[in-house]
Amino acid sequence: MNKLAITPRRGRPPKILRENQDTKAELIRSGLEQLTENGFASSGIDLILKKVGVPKGSFYHYFASKEAFGQAVLENYANYFANKLDNYLVDQSYPALIRIGNFVEDAKTGMLKYHFKRGCLVGNLGQEVDSLPESFRPQLIAIFVCWQHRLATCLKEAQIEQQLSNDTDCELLADNFWIGWEGAVSRAKLVQSTNPLQNYFDFFMAGLPR
Amino acid sequence: MNKLAITPRRGRPPKILRENQDTKAELIRSGLEQLTENGFASSGIDLILKKVGVPKGSFYHYFASKEAFGQAVLENYANYFANKLDNYLVDQSYPALIRIGNFVEDAKTGMLKYHFKRGCLVGNLGQEVDSLPESFRPQLIAIFVCWQHRLATCLKEAQIEQQLSNDTDCELLADNFWIGWEGAVSRAKLVQSTNPLQNYFDFFMAGLPR
Repeated sequence: MNKLAITPRRGRPPKILRENQDTKAELIRSGLEQLTENGFASSGIDLILKKVGVPKGSFYHYFASKEAFGQAVLENYANYFANKLDNYLVDQSYPALIRIGNFVEDAKTGMLKYHFKRGCLVGNLGQEVDSLPESFRPQLIAIFVCWQHRLATCLKEAQIEQQLSNDTDCELLADNFWIGWEGAVSRAKLVQSTNPLQNYFDFFMAGLPR
Repeated sequence: MNKLAITPRRGRPPKILRENQDTKAELIRSGLEQLTENGFASSGIDLILKKVGVPKGSFYHYFASKEAFGQAVLENYANYFANKLDNYLVDQSYPALIRIGNFVEDAKTGMLKYHFKRGCLVGNLGQEVDSLPESFRPQLIAIFVCWQHRLATCLKEAQIEQQLSNDTDCELLADNFWIGWEGAVSRAKLVQSTNPLQNYFDFFMAGLPR
């Protein structure tokens, strides 16, 4: 028992710490919803606090600033999206190019589910980057680079499968995919249809150097 | 003289009407600058009025609402952009596909000129469309359709010049160009470089069915 008493505490964290972490996670979740639908400038902290049931004065207990909050929400989204990409793009049960199509299908389902109100947080914040604190720019760029690498790895597998020409620059091709993809997500929101996602993907696939 | 007195007034409009029209045009010009840089939600009417030197109470003398003002700014931008497209895409001194490249060069120059702070007003408002008055959605969609038709006409000329496969659906291809283009403009703003515009165009050209 003495030994146990001096080792780091095991099991669930103390109740107050746990509740703090739960509230912080809940604020990030609610922030994600708000920011993905409305962007940073239009998203009031007040509404997010109200939804989570946190008193207005307590925000700075959880985050140093609205900027720090935005960064946490963005980081959370980036991790969620990277996991999603890994689920689809590394799935060895499908040929590499089909996996990209599977990701597109998932994106179509996701946009339908939220009635085209939620686009891509990274695209949204990228669009309003000049109005945001400057720290968002490198964070957003790094996220796109991370997506690019993940897709490039998948495209390199397509080369091994002889579905893509060997002299293709997979990093550049992957970069281009995400560049256009943000336009497709934005247009899908505007026309409230998955057609722009599908049409963009069809165009991307048709243009691949085989 | 009697005859002249009852015909519609010729020459310049009366001074007060003229000044009103000048102020209205100046408000639209200033609004275009603001909305293109910051979007609709973040653009305060107050700042626009202050820049143009119009007293705060006079805004509704010129526009029925912020919505009507936004629509006027958007219409103005759409006309400006349609003229720009006509200048490039109908220019018979170049082959059809080269004309598209000339437009892209102009866009690169334009984004550099404003230090990547100004993107595309249609893309910006499209991104925040769910936060805007519902009248913006059909207006934005109609503008994209107008651009699509203009580009499709140019692509059909490329078919006549045998630079594009005859079984290409030029309207669909043109639609896809603009879908991805908005992503490229957004990314160019983010990374503060013309590379996304050039890379996107190169990818578009390389993928054309010949």
